[in-house]
Amino acid sequence: MVGGGIVGLAVAWRCRQRGLRVTVHDGGDDDAAWYAAAGMLAPAGETSFGQEALTALLVESASRWAGFAAELTAETGLDLGLDARGTVAVALTGDDLAEAHRLWAYREERDLKVRRLVPSAVRALEPALSPRIRGGAHIPDDLQVDPRRVVAALRAALGDAVVPGRVGELPAGPVVVAAGTGTAALTGLPVRPVKGLVLRLRGEPGLLRHVIVGYADGRHVYLVPRADGELIVGATQEERADFTVTAGAVLELLRAATDLVPELAEFQLTETVVRHRPSTPDNAPLLGRWRDDVIVAAGHHRNGVLLTPVTADLIAGLVDTGRPDPLLEAFAPGRFA
Amino acid sequence: MVGGGIVGLAVAWRCRQRGLRVTVHDGGDDDAAWYAAAGMLAPAGETSFGQEALTALLVESASRWAGFAAELTAETGLDLGLDARGTVAVALTGDDLAEAHRLWAYREERDLKVRRLVPSAVRALEPALSPRIRGGAHIPDDLQVDPRRVVAALRAALGDAVVPGRVGELPAGPVVVAAGTGTAALTGLPVRPVKGLVLRLRGEPGLLRHVIVGYADGRHVYLVPRADGELIVGATQEERADFTVTAGAVLELLRAATDLVPELAEFQLTETVVRHRPSTPDNAPLLGRWRDDVIVAAGHHRNGVLLTPVTADLIAGLVDTGRPDPLLEAFAPGRFA
Repeated sequence: MVGGGIVGLAVAWRCRQRGLRVTVHDGGDDDAAWYAAAGMLAPAGETSFGQEALTALLVESASRWAGFAAELTAETGLDLGLDARGTVAVALTGDDLAEAHRLWAYREERDLKVRRLVPSAVRALEPALSPRIRGGAHIPDDLQVDPRRVVAALRAALGDAVVPGRVGELPAGPVVVAAGTGTAALTGLPVRPVKGLVLRLRGEPGLLRHVIVGYADGRHVYLVPRADGELIVGATQEERADFTVTAGAVLELLRAATDLVPELAEFQLTETVVRHRPSTPDNAPLLGRWRDDVIVAAGHHRNGVLLTPVTADLIAGLVDTGRPDPLLEAFAPGRFA
Repeated sequence: MVGGGIVGLAVAWRCRQRGLRVTVHDGGDDDAAWYAAAGMLAPAGETSFGQEALTALLVESASRWAGFAAELTAETGLDLGLDARGTVAVALTGDDLAEAHRLWAYREERDLKVRRLVPSAVRALEPALSPRIRGGAHIPDDLQVDPRRVVAALRAALGDAVVPGRVGELPAGPVVVAAGTGTAALTGLPVRPVKGLVLRLRGEPGLLRHVIVGYADGRHVYLVPRADGELIVGATQEERADFTVTAGAVLELLRAATDLVPELAEFQLTETVVRHRPSTPDNAPLLGRWRDDVIVAAGHHRNGVLLTPVTADLIAGLVDTGRPDPLLEAFAPGRFA
């Protein structure tokens, strides 16, 4: 297994459960997308609009998260921060509301629950929201986890099967490549970095009760509150590979966050993190056999945490049995060749 | 000497030059206002509007800066970053321009040069400014220094006369208190902390050629470029004593900076620093004898760096001769009793 991110670790864990011997080469946290991820588990959002196979995979993986988490917690004793209060989506302007309605309709067509709400009802759920908001919805089935806790638990479960250190080329013999943006250099497959900035704020615990997905003057922002008063604000999306925390990106996130929740102006800015989503030409993942001895599980774009359980199950099954699950068909690594 | 900030060190340096033995008790950089200061040396700005004695003192100190810096550099061999390119003042909206005209008129009444400019002429001086600006002025005689370099030079000049460590009460014998906000606890004098946040950005050197003093939608901001590509953005002004870097304060500075100079969005945000200006009920400093053995030099509000040379000269003279210079009259520490 090359790649010790959330996907690689989960695949390795599932392989071990099937009795396979695995070694995970872990390149560390410095360019790991999960390290910045907020851990929203929301299928059928803007990232898969109109992509039926991907939407189906997201929905399938979301349905596996509770079981995946329960099993991992039972094995390690570690809490993953799984939270089932659902998402509150909010639109600031009339244009934002029109865009949100379009996304909500897409969810409803897939039988995902969306309870549309007038502004007063949104603010009854989340009193800290700005009086300016024009509408919203409660999406009760969305989950969140804390990706840093998930990775810690997977590392604990795998113990000394995880070997620190980045590999420069593929090792001989059967290998799974789950190396995120590093997959491109190792395999030649088209995985590009998509830069994202995430902020961490800290303040009064309980100011927000749900994950907030906001549409604010055409900008998308999410606000993910943790129980201890930490609040994650994400995320920019830029087609570039540098790690610079730019003034413009910080401004964009803070403006959207305080437009939606004015009291966040008083929160402390505690952390700025830049990481890169591993993204493919169609922004759907590369999942399956690529060469005789090489299986790939990479390119999860914005959905790495959400897609972790289904990826782990399907790839471990492929490694173990040699037979691909039909769900993998649409995500063949060679589809761009 | 209690207080090893820029004022205390400069007073001590001038005392030593007069042959006096001095010991400076230096409380360190952690709550030192100079550590955040940008080092703009601009008399007759908004901080002294209508206060004639203070304006006169600011103008007098500004006229002493070049000599002070030359002497300190000659003694230590250290460059202080003194820069004489002057300030470009800019107004973003019509309201901002009306306010700026009022401040420029105040300067002109005091024979300080202000060259008012139409927007195209402002942008000829500073091409990176937003096309939205409504007007501006070139103020050719404003200087800037790097306060961190000035303090380093003063410390070098004083050598082992500087003793690290905060004192909890006044030592016995003749003492000068230049302890910034700490002066209140040591003397009971009314010095309050006024919180300020300063950002440091880093990017293309030479994007800005002058110090920019901006009026942007009612917010005041300054942009101080250093030769190496560092750019200081300051400063918020809040009546509170905490050290929290709030989301709202970062947002306010970044918004004003990028409204004035859009390309700053691409600059890296490298540092956020909160410090507290030591301020008095009339925001003018406390300068002179307070008790038989106690002379005070504190409460310089936003003008500590600018007022350093004149404060050092006048207080060292008072310590040495016992006779107060007439310039000190308006700033007696006991004036609020």
